[in-house]
Amino acid sequence: MRIIIDGMGGDNAPSEIVKGVVDAAALIDHEIHIVGDEKKIEAELAKYKYKKEQIKIVHASDVITNDDAPVKAVRTKQDSSLVKGINLLKSGGGELFISAGNTGAIMAAGLFILGRIQGIDRPAIASTYPILGKGVSLLVDSGANAECKPNNLLEFAAMGSIYMEKVLNVKKPTVGLVNMGTEENKGPTVLKAAHELLSKSSTNFVGNIEARDVPKGICDVIVCDGFIGNVILKLTEGLAWNILKLLKNKFTDGMLPKMGALLLSSKLKELKSEFDYSEYGGAPILGVKGAVVKMHGSSNANAVKNTILKGIPYAENNVVQTIQNSVLELEEIIISE
Amino acid sequence: MRIIIDGMGGDNAPSEIVKGVVDAAALIDHEIHIVGDEKKIEAELAKYKYKKEQIKIVHASDVITNDDAPVKAVRTKQDSSLVKGINLLKSGGGELFISAGNTGAIMAAGLFILGRIQGIDRPAIASTYPILGKGVSLLVDSGANAECKPNNLLEFAAMGSIYMEKVLNVKKPTVGLVNMGTEENKGPTVLKAAHELLSKSSTNFVGNIEARDVPKGICDVIVCDGFIGNVILKLTEGLAWNILKLLKNKFTDGMLPKMGALLLSSKLKELKSEFDYSEYGGAPILGVKGAVVKMHGSSNANAVKNTILKGIPYAENNVVQTIQNSVLELEEIIISE
Repeated sequence: MRIIIDGMGGDNAPSEIVKGVVDAAALIDHEIHIVGDEKKIEAELAKYKYKKEQIKIVHASDVITNDDAPVKAVRTKQDSSLVKGINLLKSGGGELFISAGNTGAIMAAGLFILGRIQGIDRPAIASTYPILGKGVSLLVDSGANAECKPNNLLEFAAMGSIYMEKVLNVKKPTVGLVNMGTEENKGPTVLKAAHELLSKSSTNFVGNIEARDVPKGICDVIVCDGFIGNVILKLTEGLAWNILKLLKNKFTDGMLPKMGALLLSSKLKELKSEFDYSEYGGAPILGVKGAVVKMHGSSNANAVKNTILKGIPYAENNVVQTIQNSVLELEEIIISE
Repeated sequence: MRIIIDGMGGDNAPSEIVKGVVDAAALIDHEIHIVGDEKKIEAELAKYKYKKEQIKIVHASDVITNDDAPVKAVRTKQDSSLVKGINLLKSGGGELFISAGNTGAIMAAGLFILGRIQGIDRPAIASTYPILGKGVSLLVDSGANAECKPNNLLEFAAMGSIYMEKVLNVKKPTVGLVNMGTEENKGPTVLKAAHELLSKSSTNFVGNIEARDVPKGICDVIVCDGFIGNVILKLTEGLAWNILKLLKNKFTDGMLPKMGALLLSSKLKELKSEFDYSEYGGAPILGVKGAVVKMHGSSNANAVKNTILKGIPYAENNVVQTIQNSVLELEEIIISE
């Protein structure tokens, strides 16, 4: 298997991307192809020891930045590392594509170049959500589709379940629909309809869930539109860091015996690492015809390494094919409404 | 001024309601009328010392529970403590009404009995959102309207600003619109239109805000639809308690010197109290013709006491009248679109 990575996307490219690639390569046998400015990437690679036959550079002269309008950029920057990388994935030059670049452009490139899996109306971003002391849930959609129809939410549930089972090894993952209350007739019309569709599906649907229960790990796959998903992900990030910062200040005000302060500081670090996105790898774009993973824009080498390692089963375990096979069941449910 | 309180609403009624009333009464000169089952409330009052002329009981034979369908309950349970209390407010028997009962029924009673302020399309629940170490923001709407039109969001901003200024003493409160990014053309159509309306308003609008910045206190009034508001409020509650619980476990594993553990435990309690809704008082229903405050269903005596104390300026500082006076400007903005 070959892994393709966008060498130029993200705040810390190419230095942290290259370092992460070298670190990951040391742990696996797969080839990794870095797409981007040959000279810059070569200069970074020169800093490390690695097997020349394992890490290769595919030159791309252009870059899509976060300021670029996604659709326009994908259409016009044909020689950008992102477009070239996705084209390489499409043509069979690799089985997994990873980028820390412009999220909208990654989605657009996935849609225009790879195309949607037939029968999937809206691809979605699936982000891992850290459950303190208990692993992760999967949040689908975490930002691709601000407004959704009931069938989109059904698709998110099905695709998220498949990913959770095939990649994160959770058997019969439970699925919850984020709503304002747990009663089945709660919330906006679109959620009532989605509840009905999900109840008929073969996913392990547990019903409506409230936002307060998300951090407790109430279910494996958290289904919501991309706006709500974005709010859940960003609020969690903001609040967790804020609490930890405040605690650190409270605990380092000089009143604690030194040993106690040190011990505490290590406990806080443990907790911080549980919230650290770089430990969890990236977020797959589910519903396009290929294994595409987006990383956080500020990914460091550790995040890059983990995204590569955790992305491998996504490509190897036939997730895309399994989603394709599930589409028939979804269509039956939607049409029967 | 007279304060009317629903003696029967909430998980801890009437005992904690009565205790909170007695505690608040000792600090103020206003009369407090408790509406509910006379015998039960009398039995609770008998446990305390208080001025007989300050606390009075208004008998109501019925109760609206959380299992009641709100609209039906308000229509049919005419002698419930909630309906009787709101009727008393309407007829001038008091200037402030407080209840820890069924939120939907409080909204329905406000709408049907008091009525909307003319020109306000949708009343909203405004909840205080704790900003660690920095006071509070006001979240409008925090759950009354799952789906909103742009003009509703404009109304929430205007009403929230007036409440923040008149009741929480914040001069020229800043207003932010929750969106998926800070650029003005972000997000669903309804938010783009709301951004345009807000830009034309006399509120101190700072633009779109992201959920990650809400816990940092990025603005005084956080505007969003009731679904998003519900997610923000509940996720914050769930995550904060989860983090604190985990920290408590980490810090009480026996490895710390006893003095350190005690000190830590007190620091955690400080933080916990910052998240404790019972410190902040209740949530006003903005946009109905009267000062109505809803409390958390699980309110204890402390929450009741604080809600009474913090509710007084809501009734005394002409918030309802000021909202009424602002409607003309809002209508001009909406019509000019």
